[in-house]
Amino acid sequence: MNSLPSTMRASVLLGPKSLAVEERALPALDDDQVLVEVTAVGVCGSDVHFWHDGRLGDWIVDEPLVLGHESGGRIVAVGRAVDPERVGERVSIEPQRPTPTSRETLTGRYNLDPDMRFYATPGVDGAFAQYVAIQSHFAWAVPNTVSDDAAALLEPLSVAIATAQKGGMTIGSRVLITGAGPIGIITAQVARAYGASEIIISDVSPARRAQALAFGATRAIDPQVEEISMLGLEVDVFVDASGVASAVQSGLRAVRAGGVVVLVGMGAGEIALPISVIQNRELIVTGIFRYANTWPTAIELVSRGLVDLDSLVTGHFDLDQVDAALRSTTQPGVLKSIVTPNTSAQ
Amino acid sequence: MNSLPSTMRASVLLGPKSLAVEERALPALDDDQVLVEVTAVGVCGSDVHFWHDGRLGDWIVDEPLVLGHESGGRIVAVGRAVDPERVGERVSIEPQRPTPTSRETLTGRYNLDPDMRFYATPGVDGAFAQYVAIQSHFAWAVPNTVSDDAAALLEPLSVAIATAQKGGMTIGSRVLITGAGPIGIITAQVARAYGASEIIISDVSPARRAQALAFGATRAIDPQVEEISMLGLEVDVFVDASGVASAVQSGLRAVRAGGVVVLVGMGAGEIALPISVIQNRELIVTGIFRYANTWPTAIELVSRGLVDLDSLVTGHFDLDQVDAALRSTTQPGVLKSIVTPNTSAQ
Amino acid sequence: MNSLPSTMRASVLLGPKSLAVEERALPALDDDQVLVEVTAVGVCGSDVHFWHDGRLGDWIVDEPLVLGHESGGRIVAVGRAVDPERVGERVSIEPQRPTPTSRETLTGRYNLDPDMRFYATPGVDGAFAQYVAIQSHFAWAVPNTVSDDAAALLEPLSVAIATAQKGGMTIGSRVLITGAGPIGIITAQVARAYGASEIIISDVSPARRAQALAFGATRAIDPQVEEISMLGLEVDVFVDASGVASAVQSGLRAVRAGGVVVLVGMGAGEIALPISVIQNRELIVTGIFRYANTWPTAIELVSRGLVDLDSLVTGHFDLDQVDAALRSTTQPGVLKSIVTPNTSAQ
Amino acid sequence: MNSLPSTMRASVLLGPKSLAVEERALPALDDDQVLVEVTAVGVCGSDVHFWHDGRLGDWIVDEPLVLGHESGGRIVAVGRAVDPERVGERVSIEPQRPTPTSRETLTGRYNLDPDMRFYATPGVDGAFAQYVAIQSHFAWAVPNTVSDDAAALLEPLSVAIATAQKGGMTIGSRVLITGAGPIGIITAQVARAYGASEIIISDVSPARRAQALAFGATRAIDPQVEEISMLGLEVDVFVDASGVASAVQSGLRAVRAGGVVVLVGMGAGEIALPISVIQNRELIVTGIFRYANTWPTAIELVSRGLVDLDSLVTGHFDLDQVDAALRSTTQPGVLKSIVTPNTSAQ
Repeated sequence: MNSLPSTMRASVLLGPKSLAVEERALPALDDDQVLVEVTAVGVCGSDVHFWHDGRLGDWIVDEPLVLGHESGGRIVAVGRAVDPERVGERVSIEPQRPTPTSRETLTGRYNLDPDMRFYATPGVDGAFAQYVAIQSHFAWAVPNTVSDDAAALLEPLSVAIATAQKGGMTIGSRVLITGAGPIGIITAQVARAYGASEIIISDVSPARRAQALAFGATRAIDPQVEEISMLGLEVDVFVDASGVASAVQSGLRAVRAGGVVVLVGMGAGEIALPISVIQNRELIVTGIFRYANTWPTAIELVSRGLVDLDSLVTGHFDLDQVDAALRSTTQPGVLKSIVTPNTSAQ
Repeated sequence: MNSLPSTMRASVLLGPKSLAVEERALPALDDDQVLVEVTAVGVCGSDVHFWHDGRLGDWIVDEPLVLGHESGGRIVAVGRAVDPERVGERVSIEPQRPTPTSRETLTGRYNLDPDMRFYATPGVDGAFAQYVAIQSHFAWAVPNTVSDDAAALLEPLSVAIATAQKGGMTIGSRVLITGAGPIGIITAQVARAYGASEIIISDVSPARRAQALAFGATRAIDPQVEEISMLGLEVDVFVDASGVASAVQSGLRAVRAGGVVVLVGMGAGEIALPISVIQNRELIVTGIFRYANTWPTAIELVSRGLVDLDSLVTGHFDLDQVDAALRSTTQPGVLKSIVTPNTSAQ
Repeated sequence: MNSLPSTMRASVLLGPKSLAVEERALPALDDDQVLVEVTAVGVCGSDVHFWHDGRLGDWIVDEPLVLGHESGGRIVAVGRAVDPERVGERVSIEPQRPTPTSRETLTGRYNLDPDMRFYATPGVDGAFAQYVAIQSHFAWAVPNTVSDDAAALLEPLSVAIATAQKGGMTIGSRVLITGAGPIGIITAQVARAYGASEIIISDVSPARRAQALAFGATRAIDPQVEEISMLGLEVDVFVDASGVASAVQSGLRAVRAGGVVVLVGMGAGEIALPISVIQNRELIVTGIFRYANTWPTAIELVSRGLVDLDSLVTGHFDLDQVDAALRSTTQPGVLKSIVTPNTSAQ
Repeated sequence: MNSLPSTMRASVLLGPKSLAVEERALPALDDDQVLVEVTAVGVCGSDVHFWHDGRLGDWIVDEPLVLGHESGGRIVAVGRAVDPERVGERVSIEPQRPTPTSRETLTGRYNLDPDMRFYATPGVDGAFAQYVAIQSHFAWAVPNTVSDDAAALLEPLSVAIATAQKGGMTIGSRVLITGAGPIGIITAQVARAYGASEIIISDVSPARRAQALAFGATRAIDPQVEEISMLGLEVDVFVDASGVASAVQSGLRAVRAGGVVVLVGMGAGEIALPISVIQNRELIVTGIFRYANTWPTAIELVSRGLVDLDSLVTGHFDLDQVDAALRSTTQPGVLKSIVTPNTSAQ
């Protein structure tokens, strides 16, 4: 770590479907930051959206942008205000930088800070690079029971934890999850860890339904065969992890009076919701915008074996293969692709 | 009270727009019930729906039904298990009968009891009659500072209290209310009582906007002139009291991150909601199905002068004029019509 | 069940340390009650207090009283309002009867109802008898994966569940429990089920410390050797299950800022508490008075094997041996004694 | 403000009852801080403790210390990261500096941050000086409807707001306050603002009881005449603002089941509390350690006239009279003394 290079390789998004590996200066460190040599980065659906469309909702990529926000690695340098003993630590990165003085931050909801700087959103480079900078306290030390891949995947696990907490999942909860992609499957595992007694998951893909059952779902439904709202489920918590309108509409009707609906899947735009169902059952309909204060729980879940992230990984790619990694996410059998920025291409 | 009649007059809905005053037996009392001589009954929008359409949402009037659920009066007889000293008490009626053993009731949310029997819903007669029966503990004694009309109107006030509590209204809250009908105006008063600093109300009617300002709103908006979502309001709580899709859609975009949306207005069917707004701001979207445990607060608010219900009343009608009372609700200048079942027509 | 006897045997407390088995009429059933042939009854510390002293706190036994409130059995008859199909069901008894109309009951905290009638408190007979009556909805059906003994012990398990919920135990919680008697050990198991990462238990008895470790505690402390407040524990939740002043005083100083103290152990009278510690750390200090709405969770925990109640049982006694059962609780190695009212003495 | 002096006058505590006015350098500003010319500083009981004893609880004054933490003034200079437009603003000071990265801060409870730096505690100088430095976002702009004295007294008002929020005060709450000093009286006003229907206050001083009634208490009790626990009060919230053991012990017995006890008064050391009362009523006993996120509410309450702070002020003192100001607090008729560091002695 005494001999850091002056430059690094980074995979840069130049425009829709246009990526290039560039040689760049290492990130400069603020006093409270650490420099992390990136070991593994998960590919997220939002990365795919940015790459494919050059945008995601209101965010538009109008300057070159490094994607990747599910990341971990090893601390190789520290800012002036950080304990130099941290160099060498294996860490998972919480990829956000809220302002410390906003009302949202001061009240403990820093993920809602309006001036948030988040990895891999326009204006803030992400982790498809050899090195990244992060505030010291958001470089979370992980024990050796957490693999490099798992350290990166504590990020989507944090989404699932925030979802479980919003939904009030606890012992005996009956949980419905629509969509058995990575977030759906991780949420199923988290629901099990929180003590849910029934974890019902729906997906049109037989392979994904099978994976969901393997990861802790107690029942898998093909929504093309069974209409969810007609099954008399009366679940306590409904999590949409699909972003599909019909899934949201069906699932919402399957929730008991007083139950909670957490909308996690993105990309749906507007969805027509039955207002009288929300009223007559006093449903709580809400969404998740990332997470706050979830990493300690995430580390706990993985290090104690309550959640298995490693088995989600279906492929590794180096920096020159980011394009392939992004394309892989829609291929059958692929659950989670990992980019390893400091590994040479084979 | 020793000489109760054996029959009474009741206004009965026979079919859409078909009402008749019938002579009926007095209600039989269960052991835990009291008999109330009805003094005043407010006319609610749901009464109008049942009268006009013969239905309301999934409820269908397929047998003769007595409407009216906003009611108060005087106890004239008691069931065997009730203290006979209660005879003579002026009371406000909480017009619902949950089963005491359902999970919802046992957890304090008796309004969500699936086997609820509620006044003026198919199968359960309401209060457009000279006498009604109610469980003793839901015949709430009112002090003389609460008028007969106000005793009846503690029911819609309870809706507003439930709304304020769901919305977390407190000192300094910024509240947006769409719709300045009776519920909107009572909610504005309740918001003020809970300490809200800004109470912004919207309505297309200039008269209603003026009434809203008179009853405590700090700002009134004509949504045909100003687009609510473009005003930068960033309210803490948004209450829809209109049931109009465009109002819900505009209002939802005016809520700050972490804020609450309470859907109170009925009749909207499905409304297309912007999912990404709910997600990115982690809004809580919910509704109100009546109320539980609100009457003590309602009595407090009125008896201390924090809410003025009497000024909402724009007309009185006797039992033979229920048709006119129901028709009155859409007339300009009418806010709340009251039926007085024990007053002779003039 | 068609041939119920007209009388039954019951063990009656006549005065301090004075028990007699009497022949009594079977309990009369109210319309909403069921008659349960009692299979197993756990012996609780409060039973021992009543038997030994003829009182417990403010409760004084001034009339003959049947003790026992941890009970289960089989339904053999039903009241007029109860589905006769229930006859034959194996059930666990929630041994309380709140009034349905008190403020506490209506708000979901029926355990705090001021007119509660609870098994084995003066005026209300308990379950050391061949038959008992209970409201139908508090005779909770148990699956065959729950043994007769476990069905009885869902009652102390409910105390532990109420404790865990009050303490906010969740994944990663650090929990301190002082006292490794039955409640302490069941609480340790429940803490583990809720996901606690550290479960530190203290007891002066080496045998009990060993049992606690076997049942899920991660660390056992001898408070005569280690001063709890000096160990730097900083736990999230501290549960006193000892009722010993020094344990409460030490444990309270081991809680992190914002943490919760749940006082479960009885018999302590007054304890001098350090006010500045409560203030400076904003501790929440509270207690448990039985439970409300816990049985579904209790059944879930036992039927899924998350809590093991059977292994707590160290001895069985028939109705003629209630005196021995009560005396047994202070013997070394005894954890939980069970009375089986319908078993003949061997 | 272009011509700031290079030095300022400050009243420094050198040891017990030993104060001296010293000429000191102006505070250096961190980038995120502002320099405030102090207009008014309230004298708090903790100031008196430090002055009288040289200590308060575990805090020991072993170096010269400037006291005073209830303060307001006018911004006269700003740090490099602060908008220079702020110069000239009238502000109230939230006198604490938590670390932004502690678990407590990140979860919105920054007042519990273990590395907090708080005005007028050993190691951190307070506001009995002509100028102080504070982070920009904790220099809260106040409107002209808030006087200089009131701007200073938003600090004790914040204690009362934190108390009301902990106690869950709302419309119809029944509140007991023991001790009618400044905190007790401000809490009574805040309880009224939150809608409390009964505000019962106790104090041995007839003058203070009279003041309490004038400021919104609905009943004043002399605890030497009436034993609080015997009055059948059954309050929802009990606030001890006296720090007297007998007050805490009596008040705790006057709380309804499920009610809340907030211990605000300091200096009591250990108090013997009846554990069975806490348990049988499931009381929540907690304390207040300053406040977090209260200033917006405080400004709201004063600017809308819901709380009157100005009438609490019974005397003004300049920097040379700090000794007199501290001594004044125990004199009859004195409620709140104010030090005005930039006013010349008369």
